[in-house]
Amino acid sequence: MIKIAIDAMGGDFAPKEQVEGAQLAIARIPDIELTLYGDETEIRKYLQDESRINIVQADGVVSMDEKDPIRAIRQNRRSSMALALSSVRKEGQDAVVSSGATQALIAGAHILIGRMKGMKRTAIAPVIPTVGNGRMILLDAGANMEIRPEHMLQQAHFATVYAKEILDIAEPKVGLINVGTEEGKGRELDNDVEALFKSNARIDFHGNVEPKDVLDPPAEVLISDGFTANIVMKTIEGTAKGMGTMLKEELSQGILGKLGLLLSYRNLKRFKRRMDPAEIGGAMIYGLRGVAIKAQGASKSDGFYNAIRQASDVVRQDVIEKVSTVIESEET
Amino acid sequence: MIKIAIDAMGGDFAPKEQVEGAQLAIARIPDIELTLYGDETEIRKYLQDESRINIVQADGVVSMDEKDPIRAIRQNRRSSMALALSSVRKEGQDAVVSSGATQALIAGAHILIGRMKGMKRTAIAPVIPTVGNGRMILLDAGANMEIRPEHMLQQAHFATVYAKEILDIAEPKVGLINVGTEEGKGRELDNDVEALFKSNARIDFHGNVEPKDVLDPPAEVLISDGFTANIVMKTIEGTAKGMGTMLKEELSQGILGKLGLLLSYRNLKRFKRRMDPAEIGGAMIYGLRGVAIKAQGASKSDGFYNAIRQASDVVRQDVIEKVSTVIESEET
Repeated sequence: MIKIAIDAMGGDFAPKEQVEGAQLAIARIPDIELTLYGDETEIRKYLQDESRINIVQADGVVSMDEKDPIRAIRQNRRSSMALALSSVRKEGQDAVVSSGATQALIAGAHILIGRMKGMKRTAIAPVIPTVGNGRMILLDAGANMEIRPEHMLQQAHFATVYAKEILDIAEPKVGLINVGTEEGKGRELDNDVEALFKSNARIDFHGNVEPKDVLDPPAEVLISDGFTANIVMKTIEGTAKGMGTMLKEELSQGILGKLGLLLSYRNLKRFKRRMDPAEIGGAMIYGLRGVAIKAQGASKSDGFYNAIRQASDVVRQDVIEKVSTVIESEET
Repeated sequence: MIKIAIDAMGGDFAPKEQVEGAQLAIARIPDIELTLYGDETEIRKYLQDESRINIVQADGVVSMDEKDPIRAIRQNRRSSMALALSSVRKEGQDAVVSSGATQALIAGAHILIGRMKGMKRTAIAPVIPTVGNGRMILLDAGANMEIRPEHMLQQAHFATVYAKEILDIAEPKVGLINVGTEEGKGRELDNDVEALFKSNARIDFHGNVEPKDVLDPPAEVLISDGFTANIVMKTIEGTAKGMGTMLKEELSQGILGKLGLLLSYRNLKRFKRRMDPAEIGGAMIYGLRGVAIKAQGASKSDGFYNAIRQASDVVRQDVIEKVSTVIESEET
């Protein structure tokens, strides 16, 4: 059995969507067992069936807009997030899934799960849907505002293993997010990364990728520092949201247009779901001794279920162990 | 008469679209006179009427994928781009419009038009359509990969004047592109910019803006360094393009869906045009002694006409003089 700890209280619609997502996961994935950390009474309101589900009482929630993430964890050791994170080390849970505040989760995972041996930095890596039902990993989506090329290389190793094992991509390519495709474009950091990645035998380095190809990229892993990749992630989100609004404005023009909109209703709904970050599942925190998945704050049950499925896949495929082997052999 | 120099040979569809765009501008804007720089024979193929239009023979074109932009200008002094740029100083043209290679145009403008007194850096500033038929200025979309807060402040002054005079926004707000809205988010640069902008009486500083609001922003000017803002611009472009493809994939599902798509055809086309960067007009190069507008490389005649209209507006409103007054009084 794969044992997964669930932070049932983190997220905009917690615990309802988290509990229902957990229930979906139990129904659909036979080899998992879940422990829900949170307010027992609240959790039981939404729980239909307790088979393969344990509940552990937690007290307090890490606020979604906590300004000092490290303090948030230290002062809320009995919170659902902190207890779920601790359980990986203390109770032998194989993974933890949370929709709670990103920075607190990253800081908490760092403190309570700990870094993988040899790994210099953690990173957060969402998987983003691309044209033609593709997928790409975006790195580092916000853990390190400033970072060195060697650390980015370790993260690229992680993403390469992840893409092979979880996304079933036989030979994942890594692209550097940059302002132009030619060599030498961008900042000093980007030029250093280019040189380092090109000379590494384990990385299939594509070179620079301009974000005007971000949803149809020539590589399955797109990497930059945590500031830039976070900006890319949020710009994708903002553009999708803004375009959705403009699309609605335009599509409802005229009588034929309104009829067309009506007939397109189901297709538009599916399109919206396809682009909705809350439905995509979770972002994995790279660089830990264990598996931690950050589900979107706005996750509904389906999205949260996807994050649990993702966690179980990562455990089943032994990703941590495989990355660890790469990192250690790169070190020597 | 406002005199505008046109680089007729720069752009993916030059000179056809540039010449036709110029013709549109003459028909619609009564107080302008245009000089077209380029191959006379080629230009005349597309020119219907030469009233208020002069042609000056140029030789050679600056390539769209020139790697060394400064060399591109120095070695092509008789090119349409270089001649058009030079004409601002040498022939008293009030403005120049080009769809040519961005970096070459910025470098060329620097050399051949020269920087405004007191202005430390140039910048490139596209105007991007937002939700509810709004507009926002994005800065610096790619002129300076690394930059100091004082230089960003000068650019914000420029954008503030531009927003008032050209976009008719009475009190334009300036937002800093950042990974979070709270103070203290982001890199050292961002914190320094925050402190500097907050204490400047001429800037209505909104604080941080997350790009998840990029198409519905709480400020009319969004600023960052030239690397980051260029990444934002290209991510908007890439997301719009990718979403367009996915939308087509989804909308054509099923028989009712296909019918809906058919009925929505005109509205979708308008939506596409609304999001098409080539239709939006031009990006102004900030920080020069004169007016230089970069039209999109893929401009069609309508988009190029928009860039000419924009240039004439900037001249008519005396933007350069007004910015110059601000910059000089800030210096003392």
